[in-house]
Amino acid sequence: MSLDKVLNLIDESLSDSTERLFELLRIPSISTDPAYKKDCDQAADWLVADLKSIGVDAQKHPTPGHPMVVGHIGDKGPHVLFYGHYDVQPVDPLNLWDRDPFDPALEDTAKGKVIRARGSSDDKGQLMTFVEACRAWQTVHGEMPCRITFFFEGEEESGSPSLIPFMEQNKDMLTADIALICDTGLFADKTPAIVTMLRGLMGEEITITGPDKDLHSGMYGGPARNPIRVLTKILGGLHDEQGRVTVPDFYAGVPELPAEIKEQWDNLKFENSEFLGEVGLSIPAGETDHTALEMIWSRPTGEINGIWGGYTGEGFKTVLPSKASAKVSFRLVGQQDPHAIRENFRTWVKAQVPADCRVEFTPHGASPASVMSTDHPAFEAARSALSDEWPDPAAFVGCGGSIPIAGYFKSLLDMDAMLIGFGRDDDQIHSPNEKYALESFHKGTRSWARILDAVSKLS
Amino acid sequence: MSLDKVLNLIDESLSDSTERLFELLRIPSISTDPAYKKDCDQAADWLVADLKSIGVDAQKHPTPGHPMVVGHIGDKGPHVLFYGHYDVQPVDPLNLWDRDPFDPALEDTAKGKVIRARGSSDDKGQLMTFVEACRAWQTVHGEMPCRITFFFEGEEESGSPSLIPFMEQNKDMLTADIALICDTGLFADKTPAIVTMLRGLMGEEITITGPDKDLHSGMYGGPARNPIRVLTKILGGLHDEQGRVTVPDFYAGVPELPAEIKEQWDNLKFENSEFLGEVGLSIPAGETDHTALEMIWSRPTGEINGIWGGYTGEGFKTVLPSKASAKVSFRLVGQQDPHAIRENFRTWVKAQVPADCRVEFTPHGASPASVMSTDHPAFEAARSALSDEWPDPAAFVGCGGSIPIAGYFKSLLDMDAMLIGFGRDDDQIHSPNEKYALESFHKGTRSWARILDAVSKLS
Repeated sequence: MSLDKVLNLIDESLSDSTERLFELLRIPSISTDPAYKKDCDQAADWLVADLKSIGVDAQKHPTPGHPMVVGHIGDKGPHVLFYGHYDVQPVDPLNLWDRDPFDPALEDTAKGKVIRARGSSDDKGQLMTFVEACRAWQTVHGEMPCRITFFFEGEEESGSPSLIPFMEQNKDMLTADIALICDTGLFADKTPAIVTMLRGLMGEEITITGPDKDLHSGMYGGPARNPIRVLTKILGGLHDEQGRVTVPDFYAGVPELPAEIKEQWDNLKFENSEFLGEVGLSIPAGETDHTALEMIWSRPTGEINGIWGGYTGEGFKTVLPSKASAKVSFRLVGQQDPHAIRENFRTWVKAQVPADCRVEFTPHGASPASVMSTDHPAFEAARSALSDEWPDPAAFVGCGGSIPIAGYFKSLLDMDAMLIGFGRDDDQIHSPNEKYALESFHKGTRSWARILDAVSKLS
Repeated sequence: MSLDKVLNLIDESLSDSTERLFELLRIPSISTDPAYKKDCDQAADWLVADLKSIGVDAQKHPTPGHPMVVGHIGDKGPHVLFYGHYDVQPVDPLNLWDRDPFDPALEDTAKGKVIRARGSSDDKGQLMTFVEACRAWQTVHGEMPCRITFFFEGEEESGSPSLIPFMEQNKDMLTADIALICDTGLFADKTPAIVTMLRGLMGEEITITGPDKDLHSGMYGGPARNPIRVLTKILGGLHDEQGRVTVPDFYAGVPELPAEIKEQWDNLKFENSEFLGEVGLSIPAGETDHTALEMIWSRPTGEINGIWGGYTGEGFKTVLPSKASAKVSFRLVGQQDPHAIRENFRTWVKAQVPADCRVEFTPHGASPASVMSTDHPAFEAARSALSDEWPDPAAFVGCGGSIPIAGYFKSLLDMDAMLIGFGRDDDQIHSPNEKYALESFHKGTRSWARILDAVSKLS
């Protein structure tokens, strides 16, 4: 079957492909906020209909949360499963967006055309690169070069609570020879990447309650405990002077980076000043004895993702509040155990809370890190296919974000996973004005066509 | 002129007096929120009309903020100025109120009838005790026993930005022999108090900016500076292990408590366990080497009144935010200089902010502490009058809150001020479900009638 005809069709139908992506981007499928439950459902319906339009046997599967979409096409050759997620991050602060986050548009920028919308890069734009590659194969050849299972979830941005039960209950439907995941980025604009190391994530919400009601800080300030002070004191001590997390046993299971990998990474063109300069910073923070690249790809971190308490409106209110809260998350590597770290963190917090105050914890997800085995021949096949499409050869890299699904494919379905994505560092995912380069969308689609071709030729 | 007839009329007209207070309480005059500007204006108009109804020559005076109300009545005898404020605190969190904060009602409680509404105790209910006492004098005798100037402001809860300029520009209109202020509390339910020591207040809002946009904590967590971490680290270090504020030179100008005052306070029936138990706490916080009463009345404090940054909604968002903010205030005593402390605080914060982050400060008020001279004969006259009305004799006490006006009367108009109020510790001022005991309102009105009588007899 001719690859060139498929690539040509992808080129010719780019504007149609873009318009289909825009339809999906217009659906505000924010999974973390219950107000958008119907929209998540609508995004799932849209995907089922779109997959059916290219001959895929697709269905929506209900879960206690947002639905899964699963589809199958093809009956010969190697069997790949493709995973993506149709849910998106919240959009606040909305006033920092230059346009409605759910009114996508093609914009000209100094670095080329971009698709501007929430979800354009994370992950609707990325998942549609694969769907569009399949559409082109099907249109040109009337069939796919291999067997394909599509698997889309709608809870990735809210900790994937339904994912493990669904995978456990549907092993036959989901097991393939290898998994393909499109939720990561290029290493550089001209350099594609296959991610082989992914950090895990453990999230906790803490609420400290002091007095049983808000108090006047004049009448009570001093003798009455202020929960904001308790909280800032605890969180202010979460890191030591070397930038290391102070929770006991936090570093248990963190491997030393092998010398050959460290050398390979040191040779990549990665500039701290450029990486930080793009976001208005200049001084690397974090662990003082590791490079920024090591920190993102191979070191664990603790971050405070949100904090609130007391009077936060205009003007001033001399309140001594009853409660103060924070959302804290830890990125995990190697063999770090998210459940052990959660327990250690809670014990460490509790030991610092005064006896007449109360602390409550709400868990928000727990997934260990993933380290891929690159022995499967598909890794080399994909690397070669990517290198044919892009100016620079593809690299095996790490990823700072957490994509727990990769670990679940291994632990639950015994499948290796290849993480291949086309996002750029400046895509502003999870931030206002998220975008996806039109080139990412176009060459991403072409890349998948090449990878399907290469993988289908493996015995 | 007969005092008894005045007291009798106050008793007989209590329900009318309460209904007038309800009218004022229905006006949501929240001074700190610009959305309520018209309501503040309406409260001022209401007061002008009410004063006129008892023969006071009253007028509204515009300021750059909310208007002042000034009125005069009487032409013989000693001249007193009465001060109160018609603005109220914000009402959030609204869901913790058992009723609309601006729909006042008389409620039966285990401790007697209370007037429930925002401002019932702070300060509308209190200021109306004086107005109602004057109304009764005027009704019974057709004149007042002395000369009275009424002075009501509408910015007390938002730092009184217009107060000093207005007082400086209207010295002749406002100067009297002595000032009366009704914005404090009883020492205990049966024990009235005259406050002779008031803490000052210095408020600051801090905003720390790290990256120039919100970032994904997976892609940037570690090497990129998190402003919430910077803020919690700084604020977590605001107090040392002894509960003392760590800002350099903070304790300059803090006097040791004179032994005789300490002895007098130690003899007052003040129980830590009761004071803290009423708000759900049991362990005194703050400075380890001072009693709770000393801390509230005579020691400076630093409190965090509000904090916010990052994602604070439902669920979880692994954001590394661009900004984090807090509202911090310091209660001041003795000769502490609020301006010097502001500068020292800013310097101390700046020294801890990384070079590639930015910190902005917004000042929210600065007033030194006030210590009254009790030599003026009106102090003894008032103490005696109060002791006649209440079961237990009146005490000279301190006050933890900040009522800067008392200091301004001394520094700008060279008047001593007597702070006499009838609030109770459990009035929940600045909190949801604020109330004022009907007994406070009733006996407060009677107290002022007695004080006016006593003061008018001074030569």
